[in-house]
Amino acid sequence: MSINANNILIIGLGMIGSSIALACKSKGINVKGFDLDKSVYEDALKNNVIDESVEFFDNINSLEFVSDIDLIVIAVPPKQTLDVINKLDLIWNTETTITDTSSVKNHIKLANVNNIVLSHPIAGSDKSGLSAADLNLFNNKKNVICNPFNVDQMHLDRIESFWSGALNMKISYMSVSEHDLIFAMTSHLPHLVSYALIDSIRLSPIDVADNAGGGLKEFLRLSGSNPEMWRDIFTLNRVDLIKALAGMQVSLNNLLELITEAKEIPDVLSHLEILKDELNEIKSFKEDKF
Amino acid sequence: MSINANNILIIGLGMIGSSIALACKSKGINVKGFDLDKSVYEDALKNNVIDESVEFFDNINSLEFVSDIDLIVIAVPPKQTLDVINKLDLIWNTETTITDTSSVKNHIKLANVNNIVLSHPIAGSDKSGLSAADLNLFNNKKNVICNPFNVDQMHLDRIESFWSGALNMKISYMSVSEHDLIFAMTSHLPHLVSYALIDSIRLSPIDVADNAGGGLKEFLRLSGSNPEMWRDIFTLNRVDLIKALAGMQVSLNNLLELITEAKEIPDVLSHLEILKDELNEIKSFKEDKF
Repeated sequence: MSINANNILIIGLGMIGSSIALACKSKGINVKGFDLDKSVYEDALKNNVIDESVEFFDNINSLEFVSDIDLIVIAVPPKQTLDVINKLDLIWNTETTITDTSSVKNHIKLANVNNIVLSHPIAGSDKSGLSAADLNLFNNKKNVICNPFNVDQMHLDRIESFWSGALNMKISYMSVSEHDLIFAMTSHLPHLVSYALIDSIRLSPIDVADNAGGGLKEFLRLSGSNPEMWRDIFTLNRVDLIKALAGMQVSLNNLLELITEAKEIPDVLSHLEILKDELNEIKSFKEDKF
Repeated sequence: MSINANNILIIGLGMIGSSIALACKSKGINVKGFDLDKSVYEDALKNNVIDESVEFFDNINSLEFVSDIDLIVIAVPPKQTLDVINKLDLIWNTETTITDTSSVKNHIKLANVNNIVLSHPIAGSDKSGLSAADLNLFNNKKNVICNPFNVDQMHLDRIESFWSGALNMKISYMSVSEHDLIFAMTSHLPHLVSYALIDSIRLSPIDVADNAGGGLKEFLRLSGSNPEMWRDIFTLNRVDLIKALAGMQVSLNNLLELITEAKEIPDVLSHLEILKDELNEIKSFKEDKF
């Protein structure tokens, strides 16, 4: 599939935006970049992460400015994503396709717009900022596209060809509600739990010093992720996040009942047997499922 | 420090026991091995993981048998560890040092014994069994020694020289109660939470298919750990585990209150500001602490 996006603008040059920029430049796409922090777009220009910089955000919101831009990728935290889209109202319903990279979608509510498609490239790390730009961050990863505004086919085709052709990603489609619930379960909840677990160790009077076994390392890594982005995700997706948490609490309480032998012991099985079966089922689920 | 353990016996040839065996053989130590499963010790012998096998457990519990054994390492799940120690009563208070590798210690209650020192080599993986034997598993890792029975100095010296000299581990000392609480917080709780989180996804009517972001992978890995060992750990260390969980639930509820704006808003700070500070503190704790 040819990539019908030869000129793009990336708004927000953090790890996600700058990694997209690097991959696009490697495919010969002309990349303009904007960041609220002047020093960031200057660095991006100096380090060849982008081809050209845009100095003032207000310049972008004009038909003239976007006349030679095929695609705008908004790569800012989830809450700002909606703000940026709203501030680009003069270029809604133009030939320029607009997309985002937010991990939450339900707050992006718009009416009468035919050129905005939502994207969620599933990749990331605990690093953030321009210095974490990685040409291969998205290579062979998945991108979930949501199309709640039923945009014109031309824009959908462009978005698909962009992510699959320029970024070498695998495309799948979901509704916004499917997307937000599934990622609440598989991504937002693990992060919330990691923040809570590390916070409880931080607040504890017990000095754990350097006694962190292998099990804790990923919790530490996740809780070291970009706090602004995760504050937005937790807040904006709180309903689905709490649904996912409620499910986890049921499983946790089942395990606690077994561990503390709080339930009546059935005739044929000891609790240890039940717990053993339960743990075995959880272990085998891994191999079945992923 | 010279290693005054030239002849050792390892009871239990799972991943831990067989990895200890490989490291010892590489240092020229003569390694006998026993496992309840005959095919395991036969495989261990065939694959040069041990030098000699012991066929019957009952043979071990005799003064004659241990007369040329300097050290016995019991590398079986936590609950069986106590059973094995109790079945070796004829060789308590001999010149042979006895130690274990259990991740929980509080259940190992013994009276009038002067040759049993408890050890917890802090290393592991989600793999288990002889096939996961790894010569370098313990290299440069930490080993926590507990000495609740106040053994003779000769045995302590031997244990220290064994773990540091033969396994190249860093030694630290803790009381049993310190040990069990700290590892409840840093290892047992992360595993419990991982089992609960993966179980809730397994039980959910939502098909998450292959939409597991980076955040979930470690939870999957941990929940795929040896269920027998973890059943023992959760059950035997349930009091400290529930203490650690209670602390995590406080942090989780604080985060939930912030996310759902359940608290009165103070004059000067919005909840998002508090959450931002909280998340920043959690993130920076990582760098301070480990």
